[in-house]
Amino acid sequence: MTFIMNNKQDMITSYLHAITYTYKHLQKHPDIPLIYTTQQTGIPILSGGGSGHEPSHVGFIGEGMLSGALCGSLFTPPTSTDILKAIQFLDKGQGVFIIIKNFEADMKQFDNAIQQARQLGHSIKYILSHDDISIEPKNFHVRGRGLAGTILLHKILGYAAKNGASLNHLEEIGLHLATQIATIGFATKSASLPKAALPLFDLAENNISYGIGIHGEEGYKTVPFQSSEQLANEIVNKLKLHFHWQSTEQYALLINNLGTTTDLEMGIFLNDIKQLLDIEALSIPFIKMGKYMTSLDMTGISVTLCKLTNDNWLNALHEPTTAFAW
Amino acid sequence: MTFIMNNKQDMITSYLHAITYTYKHLQKHPDIPLIYTTQQTGIPILSGGGSGHEPSHVGFIGEGMLSGALCGSLFTPPTSTDILKAIQFLDKGQGVFIIIKNFEADMKQFDNAIQQARQLGHSIKYILSHDDISIEPKNFHVRGRGLAGTILLHKILGYAAKNGASLNHLEEIGLHLATQIATIGFATKSASLPKAALPLFDLAENNISYGIGIHGEEGYKTVPFQSSEQLANEIVNKLKLHFHWQSTEQYALLINNLGTTTDLEMGIFLNDIKQLLDIEALSIPFIKMGKYMTSLDMTGISVTLCKLTNDNWLNALHEPTTAFAW
Repeated sequence: MTFIMNNKQDMITSYLHAITYTYKHLQKHPDIPLIYTTQQTGIPILSGGGSGHEPSHVGFIGEGMLSGALCGSLFTPPTSTDILKAIQFLDKGQGVFIIIKNFEADMKQFDNAIQQARQLGHSIKYILSHDDISIEPKNFHVRGRGLAGTILLHKILGYAAKNGASLNHLEEIGLHLATQIATIGFATKSASLPKAALPLFDLAENNISYGIGIHGEEGYKTVPFQSSEQLANEIVNKLKLHFHWQSTEQYALLINNLGTTTDLEMGIFLNDIKQLLDIEALSIPFIKMGKYMTSLDMTGISVTLCKLTNDNWLNALHEPTTAFAW
Repeated sequence: MTFIMNNKQDMITSYLHAITYTYKHLQKHPDIPLIYTTQQTGIPILSGGGSGHEPSHVGFIGEGMLSGALCGSLFTPPTSTDILKAIQFLDKGQGVFIIIKNFEADMKQFDNAIQQARQLGHSIKYILSHDDISIEPKNFHVRGRGLAGTILLHKILGYAAKNGASLNHLEEIGLHLATQIATIGFATKSASLPKAALPLFDLAENNISYGIGIHGEEGYKTVPFQSSEQLANEIVNKLKLHFHWQSTEQYALLINNLGTTTDLEMGIFLNDIKQLLDIEALSIPFIKMGKYMTSLDMTGISVTLCKLTNDNWLNALHEPTTAFAW
């Protein structure tokens, strides 16, 4: 694998510069790896995490979505020092709402920063994104990591903030919404770190790993690839077990490219997922397919369902935004 | 390489169904592989070509861009029979304008269809997209194939059509515009056809091929990868030779992901291109970066410059559209 780069030191900074060249409403903070929008209205919403998941989260900054996103090093969360600076920068007196992906390393940095920010007088509320429903084979625990479903939190909370929701109200929506989102995916090829010789996990040619993470964490099951239909079947079964759905229930569906899947494959797989959900007689008034939260050059797809228990959520999902990756 | 599919026969149809599930303004013709928009205004513009270049061209159908796009089999143009049916379907009495990528196989099918359509009384004008400036090493001819620059024709002609341009006026704009667009790219990995064991051209690990085509055609030069800066240098030199630009001239810049390049690499490379163009003192009021015209799972990037010799073109590029991949 040849990774197009100059050196590791300025990789993330170069990417962030390119983002500001391309999208006029996005700016880079002069000192920290924060991209923010000049179109902010309402309570500012901050997210962020390690890099290597592009377009997350910079692609979701814009009107009615995030106000800013912090970009750590590859697969490494931003430091609590930078998070604190970002909070100080974004807080115009009404406080800051933060969306954090549920990973131990991320939690630690955000927790520290939030405690310090509160001591300095900033009002902070936050929500953990924990949409991963894959199971840890060692102990059968639900992993609950923050995956592509996180961007539905960005969109629906961003819409609420734009429409004047208070910090407390954002927290209330977030707490309910986060429990209605479930994600599970598979990979046909692991990610490789730039300049590292080996993929992060071994996957023999023509094999599939179900339930992979976005930092090279292995899945819960590896089987030979048979067909897109079979993949869709495994995924829909897992989602059905999670939601215990009833026919006619309303869901939003998000099909996420984990990195280097072709659009053709994405479409073929979505078609299979849609047919299975139709058999279940679910109502799917919102379908989205694209590259939202990746794991560098991993090949694979994740499927997110969000149970639409509130009418406003569908309006929020349909509302246009200037965020470039939505 | 594991390609997520069921069988070759319905691969393209499944993808087209997924597109209509995801984008409510797009519909599939019941009999032919044509996707069209329900938001058509002005002279309808048709494009199309072989599949395997997604999101081209379905991603560019929408308000102020294409009215419809025909999708052939993998790397194989649509048949003249289907093109004729598409013309008959789209023509509401004002004729149809067609944008064709300059490949021999495509030209043949479109030519046949256009001749037949004209005999049936349809007014047809068309433009060839020939933005490829790479050189054929055997005879030093400029290859002039239709590459990612084609989508600038989609956008600027779509804008003109929406604003009431006649068929003749569209042809006039197209003829001038097509000569102002130049594209050149490189790959670090060739595309592989689904279920085929081998890549379409050999490229040793850590090597770069310059001037590759979008159907697995080899480049004009293969060298070991050194840095993103070096890639940018080669590309900008070739573009400079082509345009013989003067400082302060205005250009639009399009950085296109040929398939499986990561967003991080795209940004790093765009940053290097931008620095070199800044040194040349060009004015670049429009920069776009993303996945526009791919070659299945090829890894690589193409760079397109369009000399903005008409003020309207910049307005056209900045105008919002419902086309999902713009």
